[in-house]
Amino acid sequence: MPTTGVAAADVTGVLIAVLLSLAVIYLASRVGGELCARFDLPPVLGELLAGALVGVSILHLLVFPEGEVTAADSLVMQVVQSFLHLSPPVWEATFAAQGEVVSVLAELGVIVLLFEIGLESNLQELLRVGTQAALVAVIGVTVPFAAGTLGLIYLFHVPTIAAIFAGAALTATSIGITAKVLAELQQLSSAEGQVILGAAVLDDVLGIIILAVVASLVKTGEVEIGRVGYLIVGAAVFLVGSVLVGRLLSPWFVGLVNNMKTRGSLLLMSLLLMLVLAVIGAAIQLEAILGAFTAGLILSETDKQQDLEEQVMPLADFFVPIFFVCVGAKTDFSVFNPAIPANREGLVLAGFLVLVAMVGKVASGLGVGWGGEKLNRLAVGVGMIPRGEVGLVFAAAGASSGALNEALDAGIVVMVILTTFLAPPLLRLVFPSRSAAPVLTPDPHG
Amino acid sequence: MPTTGVAAADVTGVLIAVLLSLAVIYLASRVGGELCARFDLPPVLGELLAGALVGVSILHLLVFPEGEVTAADSLVMQVVQSFLHLSPPVWEATFAAQGEVVSVLAELGVIVLLFEIGLESNLQELLRVGTQAALVAVIGVTVPFAAGTLGLIYLFHVPTIAAIFAGAALTATSIGITAKVLAELQQLSSAEGQVILGAAVLDDVLGIIILAVVASLVKTGEVEIGRVGYLIVGAAVFLVGSVLVGRLLSPWFVGLVNNMKTRGSLLLMSLLLMLVLAVIGAAIQLEAILGAFTAGLILSETDKQQDLEEQVMPLADFFVPIFFVCVGAKTDFSVFNPAIPANREGLVLAGFLVLVAMVGKVASGLGVGWGGEKLNRLAVGVGMIPRGEVGLVFAAAGASSGALNEALDAGIVVMVILTTFLAPPLLRLVFPSRSAAPVLTPDPHG
Repeated sequence: MPTTGVAAADVTGVLIAVLLSLAVIYLASRVGGELCARFDLPPVLGELLAGALVGVSILHLLVFPEGEVTAADSLVMQVVQSFLHLSPPVWEATFAAQGEVVSVLAELGVIVLLFEIGLESNLQELLRVGTQAALVAVIGVTVPFAAGTLGLIYLFHVPTIAAIFAGAALTATSIGITAKVLAELQQLSSAEGQVILGAAVLDDVLGIIILAVVASLVKTGEVEIGRVGYLIVGAAVFLVGSVLVGRLLSPWFVGLVNNMKTRGSLLLMSLLLMLVLAVIGAAIQLEAILGAFTAGLILSETDKQQDLEEQVMPLADFFVPIFFVCVGAKTDFSVFNPAIPANREGLVLAGFLVLVAMVGKVASGLGVGWGGEKLNRLAVGVGMIPRGEVGLVFAAAGASSGALNEALDAGIVVMVILTTFLAPPLLRLVFPSRSAAPVLTPDPHG
Repeated sequence: MPTTGVAAADVTGVLIAVLLSLAVIYLASRVGGELCARFDLPPVLGELLAGALVGVSILHLLVFPEGEVTAADSLVMQVVQSFLHLSPPVWEATFAAQGEVVSVLAELGVIVLLFEIGLESNLQELLRVGTQAALVAVIGVTVPFAAGTLGLIYLFHVPTIAAIFAGAALTATSIGITAKVLAELQQLSSAEGQVILGAAVLDDVLGIIILAVVASLVKTGEVEIGRVGYLIVGAAVFLVGSVLVGRLLSPWFVGLVNNMKTRGSLLLMSLLLMLVLAVIGAAIQLEAILGAFTAGLILSETDKQQDLEEQVMPLADFFVPIFFVCVGAKTDFSVFNPAIPANREGLVLAGFLVLVAMVGKVASGLGVGWGGEKLNRLAVGVGMIPRGEVGLVFAAAGASSGALNEALDAGIVVMVILTTFLAPPLLRLVFPSRSAAPVLTPDPHG
């Protein structure tokens, strides 16, 4: 048995805790989303903020077992305990298990979101704007990284390795948040939207490579060329290869689904493709969401696209709020508390980091509009701003490797929070035209 | 921290293991379902059999951490390990975590299934056939219990307490399997279908009460009247109360949803109701699925029923196969192996138990058709046959309490397996008329 000598989680307890957590998530998602929609802000901002309200920083309803947190810190676990009266070790094991389950549901949320985004995208359009997207990605990685690292070294006298780590954390872009806001503003299929999406995907790959470089630099003092080469080749082969193979095999896939007689076959066979590509993406040390996005992109080219989009929508409605509310809930706002000494220094550093993070990504908008086409450069740049969970991965890796001191770690977290929460309203501002209608008109799924 | 001194699960490992398990589940569900559909059998039988194929008994792809099973016994965990090279304790913790996650997803599967079944039901019709359903439930509990217990005592000289436990295990009916087959045969809304559904719900409540009685009899030698009274009153108040309160509040609910402006509000608010009632159901020691069914029933009376049914369908397509494939995968067919000494005695006992289980439930069909209406008594009786996961709960409780010896435990498991796997084809036989079309015609969601 895997847990010999350790208490096993209570089955009913885990189930009740997960169901209660989902109830909290949906309540928060609706209240936050509706409030934001009424103030003409992207609903996803409301989901993030409502998540922060119910999470570790304020109400302690949706709390995850990390660091010093125990079951007693979670109101959901308190409720479970009032019904089931578990022994303390079983209670803790139940808390740990529900944390695992809700975290995986949140991961499935961003996977389904990227699958849906892929399905709503247009491969031809993505390829057409490919060069511009690549330029945006490269500028959006280079400028914040260089400005952040050099600024920290020369203005704030941060040690070189720590400065490189913090600079690297400035390079990420959260595809999830950007894509969700673009979808809410009905700008996903605009030229700007496709540039942002393509650049965000490339940014995700670049971010993984940069993290590998920086992490090996911290650990061994050298860059493992082999590993970096593996990541670059792997990413290229995976993205290009799966789209090419997918296009070749998709007529066979459609024929197969057309011959199936049981309910739900189109959806399940498509999800099977999504799962396989997500597993490959994660297994070759890229990300599961890149596989899910690619699967959506492949299926967007088939004549099943519309049927499938209709069926994926309720699934996305179920899973995606779990992701956004959990991102909010896991965000620890205590880094803003100036009573903690490391935070005072951290907040000063954060001021600088936020500035570089915003200006550097807005500058990436200069990568578009050099052909004949006139694009909204500011919108593209603003679309690249949110760091989201990707930035937090950098902060966590940096803190655990010992490269970052507490102040710099707090500074990075503040930067991630501000870019993540500010990007949705800023995007709303720079895409003024088409946005009022979709947010205020209840759609058929309303 | 909840797991001090114990290895924590690897986050990427858990995600990959869950995604791989889901891929195995969907592949098994489609292959099994399609094969059964081609032989004019209910697809759910194929999902159960395909689950058994990929599960602990044969292919070891979908394996859960129970008993002596370790990560090395799971092919999915072997694949994860080939990519991630985790340390042995981390690998085991990852295996345990993925088992928790997939088990909860399967629980969500049966919860969503019962929600959908409730939504497709008709409260008026259920109430109209209520007396007949109650008669069916009572006969279907009394006859197998009495015949099983007395037969084991007088024919097989089994000790009284053990015989009572085994008799109690004969009383259960699996709502999930019966309802799914009825839905596949498009018989859910027929008078027979509603009688079976109503009786299965009452049987579920009776089963919980009987288990409480028997378990306290084994533990203390007496029946805890207080606890039994609590369960009976709790069940009655919960079922009647939630339907009454639900009907009162549903106009307010519809008005609220109509005023919401964000995507997915109808689905999420309905799921919120489902989650709340499921939590209450589980917390008062009934079952989460009863709450989910009640929530569906309440919403089936609103004018949102049709919209909601359309949106719940893809969600059910996603979650429900996880439940059925996992039921198959968790079934250990080694009880059929006569090389194990306890099994030889067990198989003899099983022969008797299966006979009583079938005949006793078929007899329950005599509870209908005494009014003016002519109902298919055989169909109703056959519909009550599958024991499913409920019967296994009895077997597990009996084995852990020490009341059952190995042979009798094996006999009960064999009885549960045979009634569960035989019921779908038998139901197909006794409902001959309307069934060919729905199984063979691809529906819009095909």
